[in-house]
Amino acid sequence: MLAKIHVTLKNGVLDSQGKAVHHALNDLGYSEVQDVHLGKYMEIALKGISEKEAQTRVKEMCEKLLANTVIESYRFTLEPAE
Amino acid sequence: MLAKIHVTLKNGVLDSQGKAVHHALNDLGYSEVQDVHLGKYMEIALKGISEKEAQTRVKEMCEKLLANTVIESYRFTLEPAE
Repeated sequence: MLAKIHVTLKNGVLDSQGKAVHHALNDLGYSEVQDVHLGKYMEIALKGISEKEAQTRVKEMCEKLLANTVIESYRFTLEPAE
Repeated sequence: MLAKIHVTLKNGVLDSQGKAVHHALNDLGYSEVQDVHLGKYMEIALKGISEKEAQTRVKEMCEKLLANTVIESYRFTLEPAE
């Protein structure tokens, strides 16, 4: 099973990396860029557990390690392994 | 228009961050974790350009700034702004 996880900053948290990329794109002439948000993307391959177990355990992994839930939110999907 | 961009390391490039997360998850008791890949996720809000223009220009942004195409690959989708 493959978990695809997105971790992004919560609204209201200063996204300094995003701002830097925003300015860089504007400086390169991309004046159509209005806003940039940067986050993390993770793919985790899981073996030997059911989808239901995976749902619980990936949520736990996010809460414990992958996201800092004070400032970040996460979402994930589960797909059958290729 | 909203561009959602994923930047990931190409196959064969050492993913040291991914390895670190993999070990950390195994150490936390998640023995079902077989593999971890880490990448970047970006959302870029665009204004005043057509979807066709956006397709070309976001590709350019990725090639020029957002991805290091020697070691990273990128993919993106375009959605109407909310």
